[in-house]
Amino acid sequence: MTLRVGMVGLGVVGAETVRTLQAHADLIAARAGQPVKVTEVTARDRSKDRGVDLSAYRWRDDPLEIAASPDVDLVTEVVGGEGGMALAVAEAALGSGKHFVTANKAMIARHGARLAALAEANGAMIAFEAAVAGGIPVLKALKEGLAGNRIDRVYGILNGTCNFILTEMFETGRAFDDVLAEAQALGYAEADPTFDIDGIDAAQKLAILAALAFGAAPDFDAVETSGIRQVSSLDIAFAKELGYRIRLLGVAARSEDGVEQRVSACLAPASAALARIDGVTNAVMIEGAPVGESLLVGPGAGGGATSSAVLGDIVDIAAGRGGRGFGAEAATLGSLQSTPISARHGAYYIRLMVIDRPGVIAEVAGVLGRHGVSIKSVLQHGRQPDEPVPVVMTTHETTEAMMRAVADELTALDAAVEPPILMRIESL
Amino acid sequence: MTLRVGMVGLGVVGAETVRTLQAHADLIAARAGQPVKVTEVTARDRSKDRGVDLSAYRWRDDPLEIAASPDVDLVTEVVGGEGGMALAVAEAALGSGKHFVTANKAMIARHGARLAALAEANGAMIAFEAAVAGGIPVLKALKEGLAGNRIDRVYGILNGTCNFILTEMFETGRAFDDVLAEAQALGYAEADPTFDIDGIDAAQKLAILAALAFGAAPDFDAVETSGIRQVSSLDIAFAKELGYRIRLLGVAARSEDGVEQRVSACLAPASAALARIDGVTNAVMIEGAPVGESLLVGPGAGGGATSSAVLGDIVDIAAGRGGRGFGAEAATLGSLQSTPISARHGAYYIRLMVIDRPGVIAEVAGVLGRHGVSIKSVLQHGRQPDEPVPVVMTTHETTEAMMRAVADELTALDAAVEPPILMRIESL
Repeated sequence: MTLRVGMVGLGVVGAETVRTLQAHADLIAARAGQPVKVTEVTARDRSKDRGVDLSAYRWRDDPLEIAASPDVDLVTEVVGGEGGMALAVAEAALGSGKHFVTANKAMIARHGARLAALAEANGAMIAFEAAVAGGIPVLKALKEGLAGNRIDRVYGILNGTCNFILTEMFETGRAFDDVLAEAQALGYAEADPTFDIDGIDAAQKLAILAALAFGAAPDFDAVETSGIRQVSSLDIAFAKELGYRIRLLGVAARSEDGVEQRVSACLAPASAALARIDGVTNAVMIEGAPVGESLLVGPGAGGGATSSAVLGDIVDIAAGRGGRGFGAEAATLGSLQSTPISARHGAYYIRLMVIDRPGVIAEVAGVLGRHGVSIKSVLQHGRQPDEPVPVVMTTHETTEAMMRAVADELTALDAAVEPPILMRIESL
Repeated sequence: MTLRVGMVGLGVVGAETVRTLQAHADLIAARAGQPVKVTEVTARDRSKDRGVDLSAYRWRDDPLEIAASPDVDLVTEVVGGEGGMALAVAEAALGSGKHFVTANKAMIARHGARLAALAEANGAMIAFEAAVAGGIPVLKALKEGLAGNRIDRVYGILNGTCNFILTEMFETGRAFDDVLAEAQALGYAEADPTFDIDGIDAAQKLAILAALAFGAAPDFDAVETSGIRQVSSLDIAFAKELGYRIRLLGVAARSEDGVEQRVSACLAPASAALARIDGVTNAVMIEGAPVGESLLVGPGAGGGATSSAVLGDIVDIAAGRGGRGFGAEAATLGSLQSTPISARHGAYYIRLMVIDRPGVIAEVAGVLGRHGVSIKSVLQHGRQPDEPVPVVMTTHETTEAMMRAVADELTALDAAVEPPILMRIESL
């Protein structure tokens, strides 16, 4: 018996996966209980040198031929993209009863439940550990290791690019645009960084984590998503003064009122484990009962981490323990009821740029007071009469509904020169 | 179909496991693919109130009756002890083809490979995630999630009691005995603390981690084990001054010369992730290729964490993905060749109490020089002519063989009032 793998995609992750299947053939066979061999491969450009010997494998020009091949038991897709060829390959492979392993978070966050049902209907297994923080087996932890727990909250640093930028801004005091340019030069950020810095990548991962944590279908559209573009070096400095670090956090939390799923720049207490995670690292905290807190920290991207997760999934399937993609029968995966904004509780950081003139702080504080939002601290350093200056406030716990009303009224103030910056202060 | 569980032991962990099986019956059934029900229980004292309703279960006075019962598919043992009743139950259960889940690190570190072979021979599954850092599914990560990796090093904080004591000593400057007494009062340390503070508990866990990491049978005797009794508040302060924290670390590392397995108090750079793990928390770092570094952090003991791990194993077995205890066929588990001390490289911290008189530092430094050990720094604060004072040295990388020779010669020095304290400086 040999598990025969067809590789769709031979970029950094695909090539590293093939290289490791070759280099670690013996240990993988021992752990999988049978040899795992690549039989067929495909990629856009056949002639490209990928630093790995592909001569023993059948080259296919059309990925769908791999999905249909009688010489392939398991299809690995590392092409990416929410739909298009990746989705067509997933459907074809699973539809013909082939196992399917993918690193494609966009596709799983959108079509995951349907693909899991298709797998079940055809006696195939689907696995996507590589879609979320590849260097840490967090989906496996949620589905299996912590399967006895009722999970209450999952949150974490899900995007290494943003964490690198926020860490650099903190350590050097440099501006966002400046550090983004450095991240691009270092290859940590794409030429078009939207996907990372606007929180979309993190939101896809969060939707998958929430699905596994709460036994539901992933619902990307239910994730309220914002990014880090609006975080200025001023905010980094004020947060530091207040005892916090700014992190782009994905948070999925369950309460009596529903499930809250959001990705946003937050203030985390400087002493919290996640506030100490620097650079491109990912970290996911799982809170449940009876376990308490379990934290996983590791590389979230790159060929090594992602191929490690792909290989883990392949070995699981070869060993016959692949199980179900979402940890339960696809038919049982419900949809999560979103917590209404009137029931979303939290403390907030507000930074407003206002014209420095007598009475302006009282005016700003008055807005919060009228909406029943209790102020915890106010910072206004320096004086620049009749010039814009930052005023920073932190609040006690309030609701998102109230804070939205506050934000609207602050934006409309005569003294305000721009809309306020609002960030959640997370109790971690 | 229902998986029928027999519980051997109803202490904190056993009672919490039963309670959670009751409270989370629906979600466990969904994740396991079938209901999981306790059918039989046993413990030393039937009359004790454990805060959990046991009336629906058959009480057995003899644990071996559960191991032999036709109404039990899986035996859970949370009694503890390397041999005795726990081992008898394991052998009887596995011998009759029943699955076996245990939190018993002492037994697995000694008899794990033999029990895994017994399970295989009888078509049963054995699982022991709860034996190592229950709150973090680290055995599963090594066996499954990171199964594609060649693991090079596994290390971590494996004993919460020691980490609590070292953290308290650091934060308060108090002496070891004083903090140990506090830990005992808080219930973090036993009346007889030997098992924890002499490193035995950590060594059992390390032996299991090393077995999984390197595909071998666990070998408790191969772990060089020492504890934290000799760590004084002087050492804590000197380490801090040098930029380190003292942690009891379990380290299993593979090199060309073999595998090194040790548990000892070490100096970890203050900036290392493990140096920032405070209190009773456990943390395990896994280093491998292609993944790089993957860190898991969570509670290592207590009813919540341990029962979470027991339940994860039960669900795995119910779901048919229990697999093999050590991640590979028992017959393939070799024994690990220990790295000889001449090939164990590392930097060291040495503290010597010497009579403060002219020339003594030169004398001490001369010993290191004669053995070819290169000194990185020397600290000798304050003067107390003709009284014992601490002299602290750190070395560049050397071998354990050389350091043992150095220690012997330092002990014999006229000026030395006690044998030197030696600790490894770990590059983490």
